[in-house]
Amino acid sequence: MSDVNKVVLAYSGGLDTSVILKWLQDTYQCEVITFTADLGQGEELDPARQKALKFGIKPDNIFIDDLREEFVRDFVFPMFRANTTYEGEYLLGTSIARPLIAKRLVEIARQTGADAISHGATGKGNDQVRFELGAYALMPEVKIIAPWREWDLLSREKLLAYAENAGIEIDMKHREGGAPYSMDANLLHISYEGRHLEDPSAEAEESMWRWTVSPEAAPDQAEHIQIGYEKGDPVSLNGKKMSPAALLAELNRLGGKHGIGRLDLVENRYVGMKSRGCYETPGGTILLPAHRAIESITLDREVAHLKDDLMPRYASMIYNGYWWSPERVALQTLIDHTQEHVNGTVSLKLYKGNVIVTGRDSADSLFDSTIATFEDDAGAYDQKDAGGFIKLNALRMRIAASLREKRKK
Amino acid sequence: MSDVNKVVLAYSGGLDTSVILKWLQDTYQCEVITFTADLGQGEELDPARQKALKFGIKPDNIFIDDLREEFVRDFVFPMFRANTTYEGEYLLGTSIARPLIAKRLVEIARQTGADAISHGATGKGNDQVRFELGAYALMPEVKIIAPWREWDLLSREKLLAYAENAGIEIDMKHREGGAPYSMDANLLHISYEGRHLEDPSAEAEESMWRWTVSPEAAPDQAEHIQIGYEKGDPVSLNGKKMSPAALLAELNRLGGKHGIGRLDLVENRYVGMKSRGCYETPGGTILLPAHRAIESITLDREVAHLKDDLMPRYASMIYNGYWWSPERVALQTLIDHTQEHVNGTVSLKLYKGNVIVTGRDSADSLFDSTIATFEDDAGAYDQKDAGGFIKLNALRMRIAASLREKRKK
Amino acid sequence: MSDVNKVVLAYSGGLDTSVILKWLQDTYQCEVITFTADLGQGEELDPARQKALKFGIKPDNIFIDDLREEFVRDFVFPMFRANTTYEGEYLLGTSIARPLIAKRLVEIARQTGADAISHGATGKGNDQVRFELGAYALMPEVKIIAPWREWDLLSREKLLAYAENAGIEIDMKHREGGAPYSMDANLLHISYEGRHLEDPSAEAEESMWRWTVSPEAAPDQAEHIQIGYEKGDPVSLNGKKMSPAALLAELNRLGGKHGIGRLDLVENRYVGMKSRGCYETPGGTILLPAHRAIESITLDREVAHLKDDLMPRYASMIYNGYWWSPERVALQTLIDHTQEHVNGTVSLKLYKGNVIVTGRDSADSLFDSTIATFEDDAGAYDQKDAGGFIKLNALRMRIAASLREKRKK
Amino acid sequence: MSDVNKVVLAYSGGLDTSVILKWLQDTYQCEVITFTADLGQGEELDPARQKALKFGIKPDNIFIDDLREEFVRDFVFPMFRANTTYEGEYLLGTSIARPLIAKRLVEIARQTGADAISHGATGKGNDQVRFELGAYALMPEVKIIAPWREWDLLSREKLLAYAENAGIEIDMKHREGGAPYSMDANLLHISYEGRHLEDPSAEAEESMWRWTVSPEAAPDQAEHIQIGYEKGDPVSLNGKKMSPAALLAELNRLGGKHGIGRLDLVENRYVGMKSRGCYETPGGTILLPAHRAIESITLDREVAHLKDDLMPRYASMIYNGYWWSPERVALQTLIDHTQEHVNGTVSLKLYKGNVIVTGRDSADSLFDSTIATFEDDAGAYDQKDAGGFIKLNALRMRIAASLREKRKK
Repeated sequence: MSDVNKVVLAYSGGLDTSVILKWLQDTYQCEVITFTADLGQGEELDPARQKALKFGIKPDNIFIDDLREEFVRDFVFPMFRANTTYEGEYLLGTSIARPLIAKRLVEIARQTGADAISHGATGKGNDQVRFELGAYALMPEVKIIAPWREWDLLSREKLLAYAENAGIEIDMKHREGGAPYSMDANLLHISYEGRHLEDPSAEAEESMWRWTVSPEAAPDQAEHIQIGYEKGDPVSLNGKKMSPAALLAELNRLGGKHGIGRLDLVENRYVGMKSRGCYETPGGTILLPAHRAIESITLDREVAHLKDDLMPRYASMIYNGYWWSPERVALQTLIDHTQEHVNGTVSLKLYKGNVIVTGRDSADSLFDSTIATFEDDAGAYDQKDAGGFIKLNALRMRIAASLREKRKK
Repeated sequence: MSDVNKVVLAYSGGLDTSVILKWLQDTYQCEVITFTADLGQGEELDPARQKALKFGIKPDNIFIDDLREEFVRDFVFPMFRANTTYEGEYLLGTSIARPLIAKRLVEIARQTGADAISHGATGKGNDQVRFELGAYALMPEVKIIAPWREWDLLSREKLLAYAENAGIEIDMKHREGGAPYSMDANLLHISYEGRHLEDPSAEAEESMWRWTVSPEAAPDQAEHIQIGYEKGDPVSLNGKKMSPAALLAELNRLGGKHGIGRLDLVENRYVGMKSRGCYETPGGTILLPAHRAIESITLDREVAHLKDDLMPRYASMIYNGYWWSPERVALQTLIDHTQEHVNGTVSLKLYKGNVIVTGRDSADSLFDSTIATFEDDAGAYDQKDAGGFIKLNALRMRIAASLREKRKK
Repeated sequence: MSDVNKVVLAYSGGLDTSVILKWLQDTYQCEVITFTADLGQGEELDPARQKALKFGIKPDNIFIDDLREEFVRDFVFPMFRANTTYEGEYLLGTSIARPLIAKRLVEIARQTGADAISHGATGKGNDQVRFELGAYALMPEVKIIAPWREWDLLSREKLLAYAENAGIEIDMKHREGGAPYSMDANLLHISYEGRHLEDPSAEAEESMWRWTVSPEAAPDQAEHIQIGYEKGDPVSLNGKKMSPAALLAELNRLGGKHGIGRLDLVENRYVGMKSRGCYETPGGTILLPAHRAIESITLDREVAHLKDDLMPRYASMIYNGYWWSPERVALQTLIDHTQEHVNGTVSLKLYKGNVIVTGRDSADSLFDSTIATFEDDAGAYDQKDAGGFIKLNALRMRIAASLREKRKK
Repeated sequence: MSDVNKVVLAYSGGLDTSVILKWLQDTYQCEVITFTADLGQGEELDPARQKALKFGIKPDNIFIDDLREEFVRDFVFPMFRANTTYEGEYLLGTSIARPLIAKRLVEIARQTGADAISHGATGKGNDQVRFELGAYALMPEVKIIAPWREWDLLSREKLLAYAENAGIEIDMKHREGGAPYSMDANLLHISYEGRHLEDPSAEAEESMWRWTVSPEAAPDQAEHIQIGYEKGDPVSLNGKKMSPAALLAELNRLGGKHGIGRLDLVENRYVGMKSRGCYETPGGTILLPAHRAIESITLDREVAHLKDDLMPRYASMIYNGYWWSPERVALQTLIDHTQEHVNGTVSLKLYKGNVIVTGRDSADSLFDSTIATFEDDAGAYDQKDAGGFIKLNALRMRIAASLREKRKK
């Protein structure tokens, strides 16, 4: 083992990262610093502190941060400015949280003089890549310990045996039955992988979903809401200004109530395999069409199309873990620049899984009804111009067609 | 007026194109050939024949074609192979029908020795561009008469007066009340523009929608269906082989019944203005996620991403009227090539506006559960490989970060 | 004719724009303001003033501006930050000058209360588009008079007769022989079109070229130079700081002397036709590889590739006249952002038409010889990492290949 | 060591791969099959056979193939159809040869029942990636032995000691002086890396270059040539039909004679570092502008631009080793489709490092001089059309500008 003096561990307080904590102490004989973040996953963080203390972690070495506002303001919202989806559908709920954790791991490492960081992501997934690319980009000399790629605790049994041996408390749910879903949650979403989802032809069990009711169980009465936008970010709900995290939390509540935001898909991981994932993103599923709607009246056509053309690439950057890369920052510069006038209000109707845009309004609207009208436009637009427009756009095709006709003769 | 001997008119039998028919006869003193297509718009075509005869059109000059299978097979399905949406949402229901009409207008012109074609699209919209670019690309020497850009009947009143004068039958709906919605229908969709939709903040009236019930009015019971795919095209429904048009018609019925496929958006027209449109595309709204789902297990990641990157450009080509352009054909070559192994079955659940993918299965599946599994994979994947993968991907960022740190010192 | 009160004319003082000046006075009976710019075309501007006075233009209505520094600093250099070429080769010498002229026309119109602008570009070329798109984007209500699209002086004879009639001085070169080349010059280049260039298989005449000697006639002795870069822009030559225009002028002198910068190509015009053009861009032809060279050691790989992917689109925007469009500004934001650390020095050798990069150096260099070396790197790079890198990148292809092999069995 | 029964080694006969051959026998105790290809590198292959025999390789296990025609026809020419350059300049001479070698290694492995392949590429370069991605894509179960990533012979001294010990003949050049340049040659190019090139500010030594004379040393007399194209590929030189390899060889001779095709650049390797390389690609440097020239008159504008937009991505695929990937094949399908009418003749002048296009001609030319002419075009093009074309293209910018002006008030 390479020598490590201090390691900062991304610590949830759960079984896996508790085993890792102990394993790091056993294997590297080094000082462990635990970092636990509140990203809105909806779990209490105090147990993590208690457990860390039990492992002999010094109080000064226990970091517990509420990152909810930073997460939504500096990661989720910038991503939504681009109408980002990975492979057409996935709202990147897990991907977008990883760079923030990487950033904090590095900050804590620098602050405490640690030379290494560690995390509980497996060697098959995207998260290891996201954590580590982020860490390397921010602290190039950092050592990274990825226990799942190093240890021999690859079966559930071995892991439980190690835990038992180390006196780590094991929940009943872990003892009984098979492996649980692999889950990840934060203010943007909760994800599920593994178990019987590994058969992509099998429908997800209703009991799996945690944040949303099914559309069938949602209220029979639609709910109308209004989201206010400033520079491309949502800033108010039904006329009430709200902080980023508060707004997203409230949209999650509304979406969850109305059966909105479930997604079941097979995606392509950066490490090369296909993987089945289920996601609940209630607030995000409302924000995507809402942002598109406010852009639809405030953004120039060619700027909108440029964004659309670049979006899949931007999404891949985030999915693949390149948030802290110079190319993501360069694209973000462009994206943010385009949002200057993306201001206004979007009206939506939420009903049994549906998010329906019913109206959009803006003082910066480029929608000019005097021109688009089917009624007489009083000369605002000269229809004859269209003839020349078409003729010149057709010219190259006409020349080619004439040549084709000549060839035939 | 330039001299025109024979003109082929895209003739619906409705008020506007009837006025155009008469106006062509009056203005150009030329022989008019009428072309009426059944694209699945759901209207009887025989009245168009009767009206044409009344205008003195020779029976040989009346062309009425059932193009439904050709439309779906050669236009709609190729477009869906690319998961095409314009500006993130619009399924291009009108755009995709225009090139087929342009093609038939030209074929009929060649067959009858006509030197001109004419259509009823206005000078403000996209359809004139689509008709005319298509016609020029296929018959470069053709003359095009676009009455809305030439005549002085720009107000509703003048048009009605002209019609009355010409003895053209005027429906009660045209006499009473204001202008109707501007609508277009075919097997893929029905569209609405104009009237109070010209205010993008106003919600569309429930009474406007024709093909779908509202989600609220849809059955309380979900319906499960299975769509079979071959080479990227849907070929069967619930195990039953169906022709393209029959399959799409049945999906329209199912979607309409379950409140699926309404869309209300502001889009950017090729001629430079923003425009509010409402669309019902019940079958198409089912086919989009279904195709994505079957691709998700049968398409290589990088091929899928290449398609995603090119899709907005392909969509713009169709939206802007460049179906018959060499660049659309070139892109189609690539798209079609990728669909070779896009075979299998997708299971979906239809419920009150929701289209929910519940499973996908294929003999050509690239989903390899022995590799993706969270369980022991018996050596199919070496987790240690991920360390090198990440390190080399991080290398350029680490070098840059080291340089940044040196700069600070 | 629509009523125009005051029109600002882009006036060169040459025959064509002099005829236009007179024609505007005759046809529109309006006050004409002349605008003549020094963009480094190498002609004296005082004759333009004298001629304008002779046409009765009020001294206050004669604008003659030296725009050379603004042209190079705010137009040429920003474009070179993107390594811009249109259709792989053209350095956009004419295209990049038009937006500056459009901007000044509009500024002068606003300053003088003019309601129209006019220019001498023909109806077949790109320049009309560039002038007019720029003007409309900056002054949406402006009226534009494009005499070549309005008048009947389309043949050379009619134009000369009109000139004679109006007492406009006609050079001998215009009277004798056929039409001259259509030329355009500024600090970046001089262009030639027309005459026997209209046959793309015919070689350009040696006598046509004005700014460069032929490679054959260039010195037998190579010349070595060094260009210093700051934030992506050239700022010094051979260690001497120079203003943008002075630096480009000096590179033009050096390039011209060494037979550098001739280009003969067939390009695709925005208005739909192919066109043969010959260009001399001596300084620009040196700056393109020089900028690439300084970027090669200072720019991150993915940022460089992102720029390369977007460059053709950016080039088309400039070529097509969209400099003042929001999409060009958005792309420029990204491009400029990437140039933050593009600092350093490039060494070049100029010899008989060749521009040869011989070295590049920078305090911001990302070239790390301790890693790239073929010698022992003392552990800076672990070659074993490459195995994992390759294995994971290959994974999707291996899974697909396994499936193919199974299919065969 | 994993057990390997038979391994196919890409064997050049040189010192490094001879050491590898012996090391494979020593380390894996397995049967070695040698594969030596003539790709036009200009070395005799018989010595490789003799050396292999000396190592005890069975005659049946020695494969020596002349792949020159296949290399140029199926790899070089398809790549040139896309006007491919990596990072704006590099003609990918090494990259394009690797997939053919990978393909033959796999074919021989299948034919001989070998379970592994081996190559002499180092762990820092791109070639290991290209060989191995290719092999994995074609033979997913293959084992790959990359000695440079496994053994401890990383210093020159250790390697020479091992060679001496094994009785491997060592050239004087290897014994004396420092390490040689790392070189690679085939019919498309010869490359140089390492030694003092590792300082990117240092000029390459004149003595390094092998295939081309310097421009200074080239003839004072220019040479004019004509290249004939069919479907995008060069098929004749000065009117004489030639096979792909023969044609490229002759262009190499001509280019080399006239000092054409040297390139000195810093490139970004796929494995994450920057690297300085010098290349001589005499024939390829002639073919690039020649192909662009024939396309300039035969390719539609939008198709050409689509190709330009995709080219950098295609180039990266080849550079990074993804020739055998499905995404490269998909792009090739599009590229090849576009070349259907790329037929004709290009005239070029070769002079002291310059490749000057002097003319292009084609029966499939889309250049229509009746339209582009500055002379009277007899109505082929209506200049008035341009007004409408510009107005509609400007519309969105005018609407936005009006809104900006209203905002100011």
